[in-house]
Amino acid sequence: MSERADLCTVGVDFGTLSGRAVVVRVSDGAELGSAVHEYVYGVMDEALAATGERLPPEWALQDPGDYVEVLRTAVPEAVQSARVDPRAVIGIATDFTASTPMPVTADGTPLCWLPAYTGRPHAYVKLWKHHAAQDQADRINAVARERGEAWLPRYGGFISSEWEFAKGLQLLEEDPELYAATEHWVEAADWIVWQLCGRYLRNACSNGYKAIYQDGRYPDREFLAALNPGFADFAERKVANEIGQLGSAAGRLTAEAAAWTGLPEGITVAVGNVDAHVTAPAAQAVEPGQMVAIIGTSTCHVMNADHLAEVPGMCGVVDGGIVSGLFGYEAGQSCVGDIFAWYVENQVPQSLHEAADAAGKSIHQYLTDLAYAEPVGAHGMIALDWNNGNRSVLVDTHLSGLLLGQTLATRPEQIYRALVEATAFGTRVIVETFNAAGVPVREFIVAGGLIRNPQLIQTYSNVLRLPISVIGSDQGPALGSAIHAALAAGAHSDVRSASKAMGKLRRDAYTPDPAAADAYDRLYAEYRTLHDYFGRGGNDVMHRLKDLRREVTA
Amino acid sequence: MSERADLCTVGVDFGTLSGRAVVVRVSDGAELGSAVHEYVYGVMDEALAATGERLPPEWALQDPGDYVEVLRTAVPEAVQSARVDPRAVIGIATDFTASTPMPVTADGTPLCWLPAYTGRPHAYVKLWKHHAAQDQADRINAVARERGEAWLPRYGGFISSEWEFAKGLQLLEEDPELYAATEHWVEAADWIVWQLCGRYLRNACSNGYKAIYQDGRYPDREFLAALNPGFADFAERKVANEIGQLGSAAGRLTAEAAAWTGLPEGITVAVGNVDAHVTAPAAQAVEPGQMVAIIGTSTCHVMNADHLAEVPGMCGVVDGGIVSGLFGYEAGQSCVGDIFAWYVENQVPQSLHEAADAAGKSIHQYLTDLAYAEPVGAHGMIALDWNNGNRSVLVDTHLSGLLLGQTLATRPEQIYRALVEATAFGTRVIVETFNAAGVPVREFIVAGGLIRNPQLIQTYSNVLRLPISVIGSDQGPALGSAIHAALAAGAHSDVRSASKAMGKLRRDAYTPDPAAADAYDRLYAEYRTLHDYFGRGGNDVMHRLKDLRREVTA
Repeated sequence: MSERADLCTVGVDFGTLSGRAVVVRVSDGAELGSAVHEYVYGVMDEALAATGERLPPEWALQDPGDYVEVLRTAVPEAVQSARVDPRAVIGIATDFTASTPMPVTADGTPLCWLPAYTGRPHAYVKLWKHHAAQDQADRINAVARERGEAWLPRYGGFISSEWEFAKGLQLLEEDPELYAATEHWVEAADWIVWQLCGRYLRNACSNGYKAIYQDGRYPDREFLAALNPGFADFAERKVANEIGQLGSAAGRLTAEAAAWTGLPEGITVAVGNVDAHVTAPAAQAVEPGQMVAIIGTSTCHVMNADHLAEVPGMCGVVDGGIVSGLFGYEAGQSCVGDIFAWYVENQVPQSLHEAADAAGKSIHQYLTDLAYAEPVGAHGMIALDWNNGNRSVLVDTHLSGLLLGQTLATRPEQIYRALVEATAFGTRVIVETFNAAGVPVREFIVAGGLIRNPQLIQTYSNVLRLPISVIGSDQGPALGSAIHAALAAGAHSDVRSASKAMGKLRRDAYTPDPAAADAYDRLYAEYRTLHDYFGRGGNDVMHRLKDLRREVTA
Repeated sequence: MSERADLCTVGVDFGTLSGRAVVVRVSDGAELGSAVHEYVYGVMDEALAATGERLPPEWALQDPGDYVEVLRTAVPEAVQSARVDPRAVIGIATDFTASTPMPVTADGTPLCWLPAYTGRPHAYVKLWKHHAAQDQADRINAVARERGEAWLPRYGGFISSEWEFAKGLQLLEEDPELYAATEHWVEAADWIVWQLCGRYLRNACSNGYKAIYQDGRYPDREFLAALNPGFADFAERKVANEIGQLGSAAGRLTAEAAAWTGLPEGITVAVGNVDAHVTAPAAQAVEPGQMVAIIGTSTCHVMNADHLAEVPGMCGVVDGGIVSGLFGYEAGQSCVGDIFAWYVENQVPQSLHEAADAAGKSIHQYLTDLAYAEPVGAHGMIALDWNNGNRSVLVDTHLSGLLLGQTLATRPEQIYRALVEATAFGTRVIVETFNAAGVPVREFIVAGGLIRNPQLIQTYSNVLRLPISVIGSDQGPALGSAIHAALAAGAHSDVRSASKAMGKLRRDAYTPDPAAADAYDRLYAEYRTLHDYFGRGGNDVMHRLKDLRREVTA
């Protein structure tokens, strides 16, 4: 057995396309080794692998076998690459995309693994980005508003089609036989913990954000029956189960899971978690007012506060949703890296791709460098970052993009910059909304793939007029899970000390440039005017255009 | 000498980069031959050819020697290619870009040809797209509004920086010595006729549209003095001269010009004309209510009416400005082919260029075909066609582009189509404005390079809910000039019969599709709302963005 100074935990981050395991030293958070396993089935959004059956639009399924494979391959590989004795590993924790629920039997067997159901799409995991339950979500929102459900404002006034109840209602209405066969409607985040320790606990994070658990209860029978009489007992029969607090132990590694992972049987398995929220302690952001923005294809904002407030248009507020004992707030931007990727793919001429290659830069960095050679405002444009709708604070998936100010002299990189700036303005709207709702953002911290673009982060600092601190790890979620494993295993006494010891942050890596911030204030005022005009009913043209599109393509 | 049935005229169209001569049979308008001469000096917008001196931004000069070369080369080549005896040519007429004025001596010698002035930029022709007199135009408009000048509404409320008075005032203020040496401030349209027949007549078209000649007079001394005391006698001393009506003879071909052109000395030389306006008779559009849209890089709309009205935001109304005896109205869109060219150059990925090549189509046609495979409204977008400002009916060069409705699924060809549609909506605004002002558009006729794109013209028909007739010639202006030459030479008794005999039109080549028109009505309603919001003071963001751009790049 190793010295206490060398004790480790394993954090496993289950993403959309792969799972990543990282081995972390509990004393100082050193990342000793890691490994990635790409899912075999990945995202089934066109056809069901088992049968080849075409799936309808907006579907996105997974096979939970992919998750087990991560345990069997990435975890032992990470331990091996870390060159540590597996016996030095004292705990394992996991985080997952969410809401990613699946129907299982009483013992946790996914229905899709039963031969009778393997050809039924509804037997599989509905990945977070399965968007085919929009009709159900619309009804949930309409009925909740009509009945004045007290939990609705806790979600900014909107329940998403991505979440557990919408997807569960879709299951009932489209495949009632499978619905009846479902003993538990389980988040993958909790299912994987069940596989590791043999115990089903619903983690407080996804249970609060995705399963409408507020003030100690789920939506009541009357509400559920109003959606569909057959749905009345959904919460009590299919959802409810013991709840586990973040950072606590769910159980001990089973012999079977020890065999999969190569880790010692009996080590601590932590309660499950969600990938964005678990990042907070990895970025040393466990105090009230520390907002962490995980900036990737989209952006998720998570922040703790010591009191409950209803922030207009947030994604949710959950007691213990990020850190046990604090209220965890979540907001988001639906389209950040995705908009840059779309632009580069669809709107950049060959000459610039060639110039980027010649300069030895990625096209993103090349466009950024070109665009940032001129001062703020020189491109004369403003954009709205709604190409994938607006998650916060308007909570409207039917909004769409806008670009304004282009001329015959506009260059492609200038539009790229306008899009970068639009995402920064969108972030400022969120920060200002939290501030105005009495949940002040005191510190801004960034994580995620786009921290690699320094001009983007500097833009955020200038636009927000805030110093920006940057997470010191490339694998924030997995590190966050490893921190939770250490906490659950008792290697640290509380999340603050665990985060301080094992999290990594470059504090105030960026500070606002006052002159740029002044110019951005003027552009932000324009953004805000357009945001409110097109987003708050001044001109519902975006909705009408989507209505027309639906009509003519129906 | 040929039979009367074989009599011909020569029309010469002087464009921005080249001059084109066409030989046309007066009996039936058959285009027997043509030739083009590319200017040697072309557009001097970066440096003065004579000295290499750099020119400031927004300058665009020409050397009138280029025009004479067209007479010396393109005219004889056209006659040769027509295989007609030069003695069959009974007249010549010319049309020109406008306003394209130059300073000359009393005998018509351009000041730039005098050795003393050859190095002075202000001695050269200021091409229509010379935009460096914006400051002078702004003052002309401000002073005219302040004084309530009655002529201002005849120009939609705005005098352009492209026109004679703004450019003349710039000459005075930036090179007073040359201004003093200027005996006449002459449109190239009239200068070329002067070279052909030795007589200086100001044609009623450019004199009305570009030199603020209304109700028999130019702006008065008091107004001009309010701009600059030294400018008080500009109209009477530098501008005023005998005026020639369109379609009448200016004089007879001189021996010198006969030697240049190879045409018989003494044949009729017609009064000069402007390229857009001269196209109307070539398209058999000489009756009130027939609007001709010449759709190229930009679009010019010309239409006759039998009465005078003040159409808000038109470019101008001139008595005899298109056809002697009728009131000629002009409107325009600043950015049509130019916006498609900009888009293809800057916003289309290589994959589509390659696919177009593989399909053997121009990229414009390839994108059009792709985009028009789906129904109206399927792309979900709306654009404003203001990337080069708005000429009619907002008359605001500081407006800029807008694209709204894009998503992560938007394809490049869909945006291309949204831009095509935006130009159609812009045309509809103009048509509706004329209708509302009591100058109804009864028939819509198109000419210009973009008539080659059938989906574009069909879109215009659907959006306007009007049948569209198409000019039957690829060289509308030159044909129009040839018609004017025939008229001036007496081969036809009036412009109606000349136009009927020699003009060419595919009448109602396009008719509106009712279902598409219904869908476009909905999109047009959105366009109109955005047009008024951003163009009429609802949100002056486009102006503020340009102000900021000017500030930060100053």
